[in-house]
Amino acid sequence: MQYGILGTGSVGQTLASKLVSLGYKVMLGSREKHSEKALIWVHDQGHLAHEGSFADAAHFGEILINATNGTASLTALHAAGAENLLGKILLDVSNPLDFSEGIPPTLSVSNTSSLAEQIQWTFPHTYVVKALNTVNHAVMVNPGLLPEEHTLFICGNNGEAKASIITLLERFGWPFSSILDLGDITNARGMEMYLPLWLRIAGAVHGKPFNIKVVKAE
Amino acid sequence: MQYGILGTGSVGQTLASKLVSLGYKVMLGSREKHSEKALIWVHDQGHLAHEGSFADAAHFGEILINATNGTASLTALHAAGAENLLGKILLDVSNPLDFSEGIPPTLSVSNTSSLAEQIQWTFPHTYVVKALNTVNHAVMVNPGLLPEEHTLFICGNNGEAKASIITLLERFGWPFSSILDLGDITNARGMEMYLPLWLRIAGAVHGKPFNIKVVKAE
Repeated sequence: MQYGILGTGSVGQTLASKLVSLGYKVMLGSREKHSEKALIWVHDQGHLAHEGSFADAAHFGEILINATNGTASLTALHAAGAENLLGKILLDVSNPLDFSEGIPPTLSVSNTSSLAEQIQWTFPHTYVVKALNTVNHAVMVNPGLLPEEHTLFICGNNGEAKASIITLLERFGWPFSSILDLGDITNARGMEMYLPLWLRIAGAVHGKPFNIKVVKAE
Repeated sequence: MQYGILGTGSVGQTLASKLVSLGYKVMLGSREKHSEKALIWVHDQGHLAHEGSFADAAHFGEILINATNGTASLTALHAAGAENLLGKILLDVSNPLDFSEGIPPTLSVSNTSSLAEQIQWTFPHTYVVKALNTVNHAVMVNPGLLPEEHTLFICGNNGEAKASIITLLERFGWPFSSILDLGDITNARGMEMYLPLWLRIAGAVHGKPFNIKVVKAE
């Protein structure tokens, strides 16, 4: 399996490096090919690692990951090209956080829609799966960083696409029992609107890696 | 200590009954005094239980609880009267859920403000504390319903008011270690915007009582 990752920030690089460590070929895509960040990453990661434009990475990948800034994701995906997204699974890990008015950020889409839904509507022949947007990049690929099991939410319209991503998440270290499938892609509204609480918990725990665990009655 | 509870729904009645069981005098307030629900509640609860209008309950209580529907809370608090809220602690447990467009509800205020902030701005001489809006009424007064410790968020501008509410929460059964103070009242944005995720988790766990626990790295 080959992966195309859109976005060369800490989230994109962390996911790309984890995939390389698992033995997959990965192309890291950025706005312009040969970006300095991407070239350094390729140099560090060795022969499984590649870099290119958003379109190059989307063409290369059999499974794609959107790790761009949420407010720029639709632009990045248009640059990637609908033809390169066609019939593929797109794991959306982004959050539509708008920092233009400062800290704390607001959400650029919320309440009656979500970024994942907008992506799904814009690219109807792509299988959009939302997951991993509720944890920081270190926890994404190393859930064992926390001292007990905790919950990862996932949603999407296509059951097989979700099953593929769940298999990938298990390779990242997420126990199957920790993954909670919320249902179709409209559930991304809940997952993205959790971010304002996430940001405030992050402050209250002084920046330590954390996640939430769903505890339910037996 | 005497409590005034605004709202005769399941949340208001559950909190009021718990306070009576702890030995406090409680007045349950509704839009019109002598509402059928309130009269039945008083009859069931005995001599510590009282009922009246929103203004009666706000006048009666030394500590007040807003348990009205979030979209009607400001109207209810205006009916209660600023003079009856003056200098008192108001625990806001409500959520601004708007069901007018059906299920799932949207939030009538979010992203750049919250209901708790609106209440605090409208009644600047009242000590608004937000808590308990992130769990259902059964868990509010019986956190031991769940098989392990889980997290309750609290926020507000006044430290002493928060300390008073934390003492009350401990009497409800919340261990001190389970209560996470997020800071000032603007943090209610995060606590209220968690509701869309709460509603979807509730669906995924098939309506069982639940809550989330913050798990952090050591």
